[in-house]
Amino acid sequence: MADQSKVVLAFSGGLDTSYCVKYLKHDLNMEVHSVLVNTGGFDQEELKAIEKHALELGVAHHESIDVVDEFYQKAIKYLIFGNILKNNTYPLSVSAERVFQAMAIARYAKENNAEYIAHGSTGAGNDQVRFDLVFNIMAPEAKIITPIRDLQLSRQQEIDYLKSHGVNMNWEKAKYSINKGLWGTSVGGAETLTSKEALPEEAYPSQLTNKEPKSITLEFKEGEITAIDGESMSAPKAIQLLNKIGSEYAIGRDIHVGDTIIGIKGRVGFEAAAPILLIKAHHLLEKHTLTKWQQHWKEQLSSWYGMMMHEGQYLDPIMRNIEKFMDDTQQFVTGKVHLKLSPYQFALLGIESEHDLMTSKFGNYGEMNKGWSGEDVKGFTKILANQTKIFYAVNEL
Amino acid sequence: MADQSKVVLAFSGGLDTSYCVKYLKHDLNMEVHSVLVNTGGFDQEELKAIEKHALELGVAHHESIDVVDEFYQKAIKYLIFGNILKNNTYPLSVSAERVFQAMAIARYAKENNAEYIAHGSTGAGNDQVRFDLVFNIMAPEAKIITPIRDLQLSRQQEIDYLKSHGVNMNWEKAKYSINKGLWGTSVGGAETLTSKEALPEEAYPSQLTNKEPKSITLEFKEGEITAIDGESMSAPKAIQLLNKIGSEYAIGRDIHVGDTIIGIKGRVGFEAAAPILLIKAHHLLEKHTLTKWQQHWKEQLSSWYGMMMHEGQYLDPIMRNIEKFMDDTQQFVTGKVHLKLSPYQFALLGIESEHDLMTSKFGNYGEMNKGWSGEDVKGFTKILANQTKIFYAVNEL
Amino acid sequence: MADQSKVVLAFSGGLDTSYCVKYLKHDLNMEVHSVLVNTGGFDQEELKAIEKHALELGVAHHESIDVVDEFYQKAIKYLIFGNILKNNTYPLSVSAERVFQAMAIARYAKENNAEYIAHGSTGAGNDQVRFDLVFNIMAPEAKIITPIRDLQLSRQQEIDYLKSHGVNMNWEKAKYSINKGLWGTSVGGAETLTSKEALPEEAYPSQLTNKEPKSITLEFKEGEITAIDGESMSAPKAIQLLNKIGSEYAIGRDIHVGDTIIGIKGRVGFEAAAPILLIKAHHLLEKHTLTKWQQHWKEQLSSWYGMMMHEGQYLDPIMRNIEKFMDDTQQFVTGKVHLKLSPYQFALLGIESEHDLMTSKFGNYGEMNKGWSGEDVKGFTKILANQTKIFYAVNEL
Amino acid sequence: MADQSKVVLAFSGGLDTSYCVKYLKHDLNMEVHSVLVNTGGFDQEELKAIEKHALELGVAHHESIDVVDEFYQKAIKYLIFGNILKNNTYPLSVSAERVFQAMAIARYAKENNAEYIAHGSTGAGNDQVRFDLVFNIMAPEAKIITPIRDLQLSRQQEIDYLKSHGVNMNWEKAKYSINKGLWGTSVGGAETLTSKEALPEEAYPSQLTNKEPKSITLEFKEGEITAIDGESMSAPKAIQLLNKIGSEYAIGRDIHVGDTIIGIKGRVGFEAAAPILLIKAHHLLEKHTLTKWQQHWKEQLSSWYGMMMHEGQYLDPIMRNIEKFMDDTQQFVTGKVHLKLSPYQFALLGIESEHDLMTSKFGNYGEMNKGWSGEDVKGFTKILANQTKIFYAVNEL
Repeated sequence: MADQSKVVLAFSGGLDTSYCVKYLKHDLNMEVHSVLVNTGGFDQEELKAIEKHALELGVAHHESIDVVDEFYQKAIKYLIFGNILKNNTYPLSVSAERVFQAMAIARYAKENNAEYIAHGSTGAGNDQVRFDLVFNIMAPEAKIITPIRDLQLSRQQEIDYLKSHGVNMNWEKAKYSINKGLWGTSVGGAETLTSKEALPEEAYPSQLTNKEPKSITLEFKEGEITAIDGESMSAPKAIQLLNKIGSEYAIGRDIHVGDTIIGIKGRVGFEAAAPILLIKAHHLLEKHTLTKWQQHWKEQLSSWYGMMMHEGQYLDPIMRNIEKFMDDTQQFVTGKVHLKLSPYQFALLGIESEHDLMTSKFGNYGEMNKGWSGEDVKGFTKILANQTKIFYAVNEL
Repeated sequence: MADQSKVVLAFSGGLDTSYCVKYLKHDLNMEVHSVLVNTGGFDQEELKAIEKHALELGVAHHESIDVVDEFYQKAIKYLIFGNILKNNTYPLSVSAERVFQAMAIARYAKENNAEYIAHGSTGAGNDQVRFDLVFNIMAPEAKIITPIRDLQLSRQQEIDYLKSHGVNMNWEKAKYSINKGLWGTSVGGAETLTSKEALPEEAYPSQLTNKEPKSITLEFKEGEITAIDGESMSAPKAIQLLNKIGSEYAIGRDIHVGDTIIGIKGRVGFEAAAPILLIKAHHLLEKHTLTKWQQHWKEQLSSWYGMMMHEGQYLDPIMRNIEKFMDDTQQFVTGKVHLKLSPYQFALLGIESEHDLMTSKFGNYGEMNKGWSGEDVKGFTKILANQTKIFYAVNEL
Repeated sequence: MADQSKVVLAFSGGLDTSYCVKYLKHDLNMEVHSVLVNTGGFDQEELKAIEKHALELGVAHHESIDVVDEFYQKAIKYLIFGNILKNNTYPLSVSAERVFQAMAIARYAKENNAEYIAHGSTGAGNDQVRFDLVFNIMAPEAKIITPIRDLQLSRQQEIDYLKSHGVNMNWEKAKYSINKGLWGTSVGGAETLTSKEALPEEAYPSQLTNKEPKSITLEFKEGEITAIDGESMSAPKAIQLLNKIGSEYAIGRDIHVGDTIIGIKGRVGFEAAAPILLIKAHHLLEKHTLTKWQQHWKEQLSSWYGMMMHEGQYLDPIMRNIEKFMDDTQQFVTGKVHLKLSPYQFALLGIESEHDLMTSKFGNYGEMNKGWSGEDVKGFTKILANQTKIFYAVNEL
Repeated sequence: MADQSKVVLAFSGGLDTSYCVKYLKHDLNMEVHSVLVNTGGFDQEELKAIEKHALELGVAHHESIDVVDEFYQKAIKYLIFGNILKNNTYPLSVSAERVFQAMAIARYAKENNAEYIAHGSTGAGNDQVRFDLVFNIMAPEAKIITPIRDLQLSRQQEIDYLKSHGVNMNWEKAKYSINKGLWGTSVGGAETLTSKEALPEEAYPSQLTNKEPKSITLEFKEGEITAIDGESMSAPKAIQLLNKIGSEYAIGRDIHVGDTIIGIKGRVGFEAAAPILLIKAHHLLEKHTLTKWQQHWKEQLSSWYGMMMHEGQYLDPIMRNIEKFMDDTQQFVTGKVHLKLSPYQFALLGIESEHDLMTSKFGNYGEMNKGWSGEDVKGFTKILANQTKIFYAVNEL
């Protein structure tokens, strides 16, 4: 139809976005272009099934966009460089991928001159802010439609509407809502709506299948993972493999308690074997290869970077500035890290690196040294004490 | 003898400080006052044995000073408030207690008008700096003597010297050097002198004895531990009990890789069940009760506080200023934390607190909220996007 | 009338809030309680004139609330402790007082069970956010009405409406909009809407009247101003006197370029003699009495405190935590600061303090010292060089 | 002589380094290579005079090394990017140049296989640490000799020694010690050894010669100065010209009170017209072109960068990391800044930039806006209030 407005819909194939297709097409009389942006959570078969479903719902066009490489190069890489665990726990599994989904949607909408962008977020979470923020910045001329947030329909109302439009899909509500991506899988359920309850074992998609402890070696070059147990592979491949290996041991599970962008506290379970293993191994390598002040400032900047990423503020230019800082810190973060995996836990055994600053050539901790004398340390300490000594003397403390 | 100089010696009863007694007395002709400062690593029997040994070595006087309460009130409390794990790993087990030992020694030396203070540190570690710093500041008029650092004797030379003075003690060198205190036990050995090797299971003083998972509940009041499983007790008592319970599960073991005060990298193993359990539980309670910006600044200030404590800079007045900040943040950090202990690991199950900000009265994360509308969030996001939107438009990005 | 709703209106007596009285009373049929909160910008005569005007407009009740002391104790004191100049320029003259006006209004509304709170802010500035934030937090049950923001009337429309209701007041628009308070006076005009133009001399309320340079001495006790030229007075009085003295020399003028809370850049002129003189003098005294790390962290925390204050986030508990930190840093910030005032500028001559850490007892900079030797500094530097030396050697730089 | 050791001496031509030449040659029997490293403080005539003096003193070789460009590219540029004024006052005039002198000396010593490096620093200041640090790191195999620090000679003793070796030079001590470089001139005297006294007018090398106010325009491209009043020139040339113009107005004078590297407080006068004008103009341009968070983090990182530079820690790799961050922030810091110079002071009039974020296209501060509505701001503020509102409600504040 000539006078139909074009809308690009961020589509996942679930109930909410299925509802959106029908609503946009029938109630708003729009030409719906559904776009699924894959950040690593879908395989080819799943992508095809989702496309089929979209076409059956009646979209004018369906597009699958693969951003796994972009997501790694522009986000995951820096989450590893920064050893970023939000609130010391959460690898930002979902947070980071939403931004890259939103950017791909915004680019698609601009390239296809869409007047509208739609997404299926509710009015109570972080995702609505992440999507809206990116769209406001990258495609300010497009109008944003959010049927689920605006209409506040119950699950049953959505189902009834879809049924009335002849849609037939699996209406069963999973006990736990799962969001799977390259950088981890989030798990929500009745327990995570409380402050007190933990998720039961069965809530996690992966289950303990390997009880035999095993050692593995991760190789990093300038901060990036390049090989596992001597076998070279691309970083995204290594992440997938580590997720597989680690989840056999049920490694990387926890519950994140955090501040949502809209000011309330939220709680979400996750399993993220690869992120946890990579970040902890990378961090250990940095402890051996970076100076004290490099570590100090990396910690502060990374914490901020993680918070901004979490809150959808990825496009603020401060993020690019911090990335340049982080890139530069990784120059010598090259070497091997040895780990031992066991059920539910792992240990960092040690590292090997040509850039290891803990080299016995320059004196061992706890042993007598070669580069300085006891007198030097006495002088060092005397001077180091100076200001506080004067402070105590002047103020008669 | 009337013209003997008085020296106060920080005494542990080991080979080095035994050597110091004899050397100070016989070679330097001093009146030796040995002082053992107990930060929680010694029980009454051990203290008596050490006193006996000191007197046998010929000290003019031996003093045992108990600083456990002071150590808790002025240091451990803040290490918990700050969730302080150096380099995200190490609870500063040894670092913190050294400062409180040094302060007790300095006070004793001043009260007893000692001209000299002696300690048994070598020239290659952190402890020499921690001791010297505190003495320089609190007792600047006392001269510092460090025979081990100055004479650079081998272990065998020390033994020969002691034997030649008729001393008879256990000359056997332990395979692992162990330093035990209230806030954890450090473990050094051949492996920790390398970057690559982990400590073997047997290196740890505590061994896994309990394989049956168990839940426990920790109660905090204004940030301080007040009860375990419903039983009230003082914080130092709770720490001792948690160390006992946790080490049955071999919880809290790791290797710290860090920057020594003298600029080289060092590696040390430790087991610290109570510190790890308390810090992780306390941190979880804070995630529920503090605002986002309280957590942000606490993280930064605590990281600094931990670094200064580690480096012996406890007496800088900035530390008192930070403590006042931390005290104030704990006003509502009150509630229960539930944990589950298993072999080698534990899980944080959840919390209960009257001050929990994740209260369903004000809207649940992921559910439709009560205090605001979807329109409010749209407006919020629009305004939040403003600056970056303008940045992109002006710079044509 | 029994069924009239009660509204508390933040009232200044200007065109916008005069319009609000009539609109609330006649169009919304409300019982209007006008409240003027004086943060030091009004004298008794002005307050009486405003009250008369309010009653003539037909308010049910008018209240003048003096918060000068509260404003000093809870805000200005910390702005001085923190040496806070936003973007290194602006003493937050208007920003800080808005919060205290809003808090007084909120308290008044709660005490008087008002269903509504109204203010005259437009939709383009910071003040709307500051007012709304405080009302949302302190009086969440009250509904907020903002006629000027909502109706988007032109100046002429407001005048016509008021005239039609028989109001007669001075309709002339001043060339420069002036906002006067204890902590400075803001000046807006055509020039400040550009990036390029400076305010002309005549835009500033105060004019240069004294060309004769003069020395003055400010006395501080624990960070607070207590006397000028030997005469003791309360801090608010001292601020008023310094504003008078300093503006004779046209000291403290500048233009602030900053980020508004809503994301756009804004520019505003100001004259703030007392804030600039007090902050610079206080800062100099701190340079002599605080340690390096106290200054380092004060700078960071103060910068944040100023930003939060500027953005109306005064009620976040992190602000109380930071205040406790700042209070504690001021323990020894006691002494005299000598300044010399000249037209348009001033010089800090020097300080006198019993807590001055630059005491010649402990060695003078550039002269040979008493507390350490050249050998000590050699040792100090050798150890200080250690890590970077190893870094260069290991990485062959 | 075949068996003479080769020593490279950092040479300035003054009394101390003249003494060093004779002492190294005659008392230590060394082959002295004097090196003057020019960071912009010497013109060709002065350099020739110093060379002549060195040869007369009997050096085996004299070298003049010009590092002005390197000093600008690797240090001054970043001091401007960072708007760095130590303790909010001092542009690090001397501090920064010492490091570049030391690096040039170290390179020269390595290239010429010198066994020794000598410098004329005393044991009471910062320079000894700056020199030693760089030599320890860049030329660890060279031994450092510091005759003035080691021998602690009085001025008269040095003169007597030189006279006894037949040296004839100007023995008169200047009332004020002056250190001139591209980035400013330091001034020390009897007054700066007190906390109370200011430097008299005549202590400053430049004097007020121009009382006629004048406007100038500085042009920046990606953060670097490229033109003055429309005339293009290299940055070092622009700095020299601005020093000339600014010092006619006696602009840029002040006294720095700071913490020396060795822990005591120090005070030093300076005049630095170009640094002050450039930094303030550059900072204003940044206020218009950077986002809020870019400014926030630049402030923190720059403050640290300045402290490290001041303390001679330029070679720590964290400095390179921060430089990468700063480079990236300057991408759009391009435009003109207008200033007005007057006796003893100047005003920033305004800026013009294509990258100005204060563009009226997107809404003016204080005027009704175009990109959002009052409703949007209401929603924004409601959400922004959320966490603190919940905090107050939960904790019944």
